[in-house]
Amino acid sequence: MSGWLCIAGLGPGDEAMVTPEVSLALAQATDVLGYIPYVARVASRPGLTLHPSDNREELERARAALGLAARGGRVVVVSSGDPGVFAMAAAVFEAMEARPDWLALDVRVLPGITAMLAAAARAGAPLGHDFCAINLSDNLKPWALIERRVRAAAGADMAMAFYNPRSASRPHRFEQILQLLRESCEPERLLLFARAVSTPQERLLCVSLGEARADMADMRTVVIVGSSTTRRVGRFVYTPRSVPCA
Amino acid sequence: MSGWLCIAGLGPGDEAMVTPEVSLALAQATDVLGYIPYVARVASRPGLTLHPSDNREELERARAALGLAARGGRVVVVSSGDPGVFAMAAAVFEAMEARPDWLALDVRVLPGITAMLAAAARAGAPLGHDFCAINLSDNLKPWALIERRVRAAAGADMAMAFYNPRSASRPHRFEQILQLLRESCEPERLLLFARAVSTPQERLLCVSLGEARADMADMRTVVIVGSSTTRRVGRFVYTPRSVPCA
Repeated sequence: MSGWLCIAGLGPGDEAMVTPEVSLALAQATDVLGYIPYVARVASRPGLTLHPSDNREELERARAALGLAARGGRVVVVSSGDPGVFAMAAAVFEAMEARPDWLALDVRVLPGITAMLAAAARAGAPLGHDFCAINLSDNLKPWALIERRVRAAAGADMAMAFYNPRSASRPHRFEQILQLLRESCEPERLLLFARAVSTPQERLLCVSLGEARADMADMRTVVIVGSSTTRRVGRFVYTPRSVPCA
Repeated sequence: MSGWLCIAGLGPGDEAMVTPEVSLALAQATDVLGYIPYVARVASRPGLTLHPSDNREELERARAALGLAARGGRVVVVSSGDPGVFAMAAAVFEAMEARPDWLALDVRVLPGITAMLAAAARAGAPLGHDFCAINLSDNLKPWALIERRVRAAAGADMAMAFYNPRSASRPHRFEQILQLLRESCEPERLLLFARAVSTPQERLLCVSLGEARADMADMRTVVIVGSSTTRRVGRFVYTPRSVPCA
C-alpha cells in the first residue's frame, strides 16, 4: 500500500499564491476531492480523477478521500485558503477518529494562504497585532458561543477576522454581530469587508463601525474588525505594533 | 520614478512553502532588506544588493526600504512567515505615517505561510475552530494587556497561538502564562510546542497543560493551546468543527 492523502490549501484564488508543495502534490495525485468551485481550479489531465462535491458534505468527502488513499490512491483534498482554518483538515481527522484502521495512512496537511491574511495583506496590516479568527456560521456550534467569543475579543481589544459572516440561510445573524460590536466599540472603529481577494471579483471596502451595514458582507467576504488602535494611513489600514502603556 | 516596495512573507523555512508571487518579487528586486537570518535565505545575484540588519531595528529598516523605493529601487522587505502577522508590514506603514511623501509609493504586502498555520498543519488541525494569535513579547505593549487577552481567550474557550513565547530577556514571563492557563483550563488541555517548523531544526511536542514546562519553548517556538474540545487522534491533534449545544 503506497497511497497517501494530502489536505491542501489552494490559497484565496490567485494561482501565484499556491505554494510549490501544493502544486507538486496536485501534479502527483490520482484523485482530487473538494467543494465544486475549488476542484474547478485544478486542471484535468490523464490519470487524474476529479471528484467535485457539494458544500456541507465535508465528512462524507473526507471518508471518500481516506478510502481512496487506503486503496492505494494518491489523493488530494483541496480547500480554498488554508485547510486548517475552518476547512477540510478537521473533517478528515474527524473521519479518521471513527476508523482506527485509517490512522496508519500517510496523511499530511499542506498549509495555504488563508483568506484573512490575504485580505489583510491587500488592505495593509490590520492584523499586525493580536487578533482572533472566528467563524460566524452557527451550523455546527451554538450561536451563544459565537456571541461570547466576539464579546471576549472586543473586551480584550483584539482585532477580529470573521469567516462566513453572512449567508442566505441566516441573513440576520451578522446584523446581530454588528449590533454587539456597537455596544462594545466606538463608532470610529474600522471594519474591512474583503470579498474574493485576489480573484477578478475582488472588492475591498474599509468603513467605520458607524457606517457598516450587514449587506456589505456575503459568503465570499472576510470581515476584519480592527482593534482600538487600528487606523488608516493613505489608502492602507494597519494596526500598529505598539500599544502604549495606559 | 518606477520604484516599488513589496513586504514579502518567506513562510516558515521550507522553500516549497514560498509562494510564486514572492519568488517573482525577489527575482525582480534590486534590494532586499530584513533580519539577518531571513535575508540569508535569499540567493545573491548580480544586480541585487542584500541589506541584512539586526532584530529590533524594524522601524529603521522600514525607513531605509521606503527611501530606496522612493529613489527608484525595486525593494523587497522579507519577513519569515507572513509579513502581516507580528512582522514587518506594520512597521512599514508606521514609517509611512510619518512621511506623507511616501504615501504615493507603490507598496504591496505579499502574504506568506505564517508560523502558527505551518505548525498547525504539521500537527493536524489544532486551529480548526475559532482561535486567537497573541504575541507574548512585552517589548511594545504592557504585560497586563497580554494577560488580559490570554484570560479573555481562555474564558471564551478559543484555541490560542502564542508567538515569541519566551526569550532570554524575559525568561519568567512564559511561566506566568502557563500559570494563568492552569487557573482557567483543565490539566488535560493540550498544548503544542512547535519549533522551527519545516526546517532541519523542526521539533514538535504535544503535551497536556499539566505536563507543560516553560523551557519547552524558545524564541523559535510557536505554542498552540487547544480549546476544551481539542483532542488527539493517532499521531495528530485536532479541534473538531462542531461544538455541541450545552
